[in-house]
Amino acid sequence: MAQIVKRLSAASVTTQSFFTARHMSAMAKVLRYGEFGEPAKVLRLQEEPIPTPKHGEVLIKTLGAPINPADINTIQGKYPVKPTFPAVGGNECVGEVVAVGGDGSSLKVGDRVVPFATGLGTWRSHAIYPTNQLMKVPASIGVAEAATITVNPCTGYRMLKDFVSLAPGDTVIQNGANSACGQAIIQLCRAWNVECVGIVRDRPEFVQLKDYLKGLGAAEILTEEELRTTKLFKDGIFRKPKLALNCVGGKSALELARQLDQAGVMVTYGGMSREPVTVPTASLIFKDLRFVGFWMTRWTKEHAASPERSAMFNELFGLIERGALRAPAHELISFADYAAAVTNALNIQGFVGKKYILQF
Amino acid sequence: MAQIVKRLSAASVTTQSFFTARHMSAMAKVLRYGEFGEPAKVLRLQEEPIPTPKHGEVLIKTLGAPINPADINTIQGKYPVKPTFPAVGGNECVGEVVAVGGDGSSLKVGDRVVPFATGLGTWRSHAIYPTNQLMKVPASIGVAEAATITVNPCTGYRMLKDFVSLAPGDTVIQNGANSACGQAIIQLCRAWNVECVGIVRDRPEFVQLKDYLKGLGAAEILTEEELRTTKLFKDGIFRKPKLALNCVGGKSALELARQLDQAGVMVTYGGMSREPVTVPTASLIFKDLRFVGFWMTRWTKEHAASPERSAMFNELFGLIERGALRAPAHELISFADYAAAVTNALNIQGFVGKKYILQF
Repeated sequence: MAQIVKRLSAASVTTQSFFTARHMSAMAKVLRYGEFGEPAKVLRLQEEPIPTPKHGEVLIKTLGAPINPADINTIQGKYPVKPTFPAVGGNECVGEVVAVGGDGSSLKVGDRVVPFATGLGTWRSHAIYPTNQLMKVPASIGVAEAATITVNPCTGYRMLKDFVSLAPGDTVIQNGANSACGQAIIQLCRAWNVECVGIVRDRPEFVQLKDYLKGLGAAEILTEEELRTTKLFKDGIFRKPKLALNCVGGKSALELARQLDQAGVMVTYGGMSREPVTVPTASLIFKDLRFVGFWMTRWTKEHAASPERSAMFNELFGLIERGALRAPAHELISFADYAAAVTNALNIQGFVGKKYILQF
Repeated sequence: MAQIVKRLSAASVTTQSFFTARHMSAMAKVLRYGEFGEPAKVLRLQEEPIPTPKHGEVLIKTLGAPINPADINTIQGKYPVKPTFPAVGGNECVGEVVAVGGDGSSLKVGDRVVPFATGLGTWRSHAIYPTNQLMKVPASIGVAEAATITVNPCTGYRMLKDFVSLAPGDTVIQNGANSACGQAIIQLCRAWNVECVGIVRDRPEFVQLKDYLKGLGAAEILTEEELRTTKLFKDGIFRKPKLALNCVGGKSALELARQLDQAGVMVTYGGMSREPVTVPTASLIFKDLRFVGFWMTRWTKEHAASPERSAMFNELFGLIERGALRAPAHELISFADYAAAVTNALNIQGFVGKKYILQF
């Protein structure tokens, strides 16, 4: 008992000295919403006292928090995960530990951390997290890379690893290749010597976009029209794809499926066209194609503290450190400009989708 | 060398004595076609000498050979497996061994046998098969059951066993529940204490059909319209289905998928509506549904002489012997009447599909 009292009192000293020294007068800023609707309308920028971490918790100062499509859909009420109101927007961030509650923590002030769980509400300047829900990120990882690591690179990583066994020289085909996840997939394929053929919608800047995505490591980039008549796979320029990654649906997904090899798998992780995936009966029976879905949120829940999760992040950190995996095209914007950012987040700006990362 | 000569000469004596004694003057009858087209037009009834089995082969007299939809589609040229012309129709049969080529065979005259492989051409009164491509069938199995065992009961068996793990009380939902395969699936579910909810198109004889299929063991039979608004699963009358078996496609498949439980699997093995399977994106990502296909021909190729194959047939034989698995509704017809049978085989006659079994 005496030992516990001593530890608690030590914790309280640590926390108090931090607040006294640096942050006593600062207020935390939070983007909250109390009803579903268009984000620019329903989000409110609020100020509140910076909270104090308890034993087993840390206080972080947010360094960057991206605006992902799922964040917008959640606020619109269109996402299957419904928050409890009032809710804080955002699901990803990187932060710096500014106070540790109690002693004996595995984290210390100055550490960079990323939360594992989704639905925590990351669009806030400060947040308290249980230590065991945070992952320490090497200091060598940039803010943009760290802030965007848990959704898109992890989604790409799992989809490339968990459905078929890919060997060097095998082909993966994906639509929406210019999306943030698409850019991660291209780079992971390059790192693993897998040929990634990417499909994008035709657009005036197609040549620029193609150059950009081939620069990331895409083996080839085709428009949806070009895919319909391509002989890349028939002529053996690339092996027939074992894996198709679909975030569009409709005709685009159908064309991907047509190119799949016998017993190939299509993994759907998005539906930007708002059209369902249409599967010809013969492709199921005679070609043995399989159609499945992937949702990173579910994977994370089902693999909390698993060795697979640690292995994945270690590999991703390594790739980022040696420059093999960069953040998607993005723009760092000030927290104060959130309204324009949440309004534009779903629109494609320029030749490649740009991800907004809020800074505080 | 001397031993081989001795064995061959013994074989030749065995074969010759058979022909001399019983079949010397008989001719074999064969249904051949030399081009794709409507079966009644392109099939020709031919006579030819009864062939003589070599060492490692047996001669069988066909006791029954069904007309399956895939046989019709093959002759029409609509099936992915294309025969070499001239070809013999049919893929299933049961026969009686009437001559054994050589000695030391595992089969003897009088044994009832079923060929494993497809594409052999079974619409013939006599056929030579390598012994190792034949499975001996217990004498207690009826001709109709034996003649139709390798396609539909095996398809149902594998689809129920290979995609999800079903426990007693679990639910399977299937459309085309009145098809020959549907009838086998209902009976297998009953044997394994799995609730089978069957869907059929509405028709004047729906009540009769429902009674017939519930008599086979269906837990419930609904029309496609009834399925759309059923509360059987919402209200917990039955567990939400883990497995949906689809031989229709289109809207019917979509309604099956709507009823599937989280992480459920739809296995497609037919497409009677000629419409593709439409898969809502959200059902893939958030409900984690999986859409796959099954083709018995591929399974058989990939599991030749496997323990799984033996175990399956032993279990099916046991079910047939104790009356738990009956042949689908069928009509035995004379070989001479083949033209009418192949013309009507794809039409649903009466309240339940009827399978024609050719006899010789």
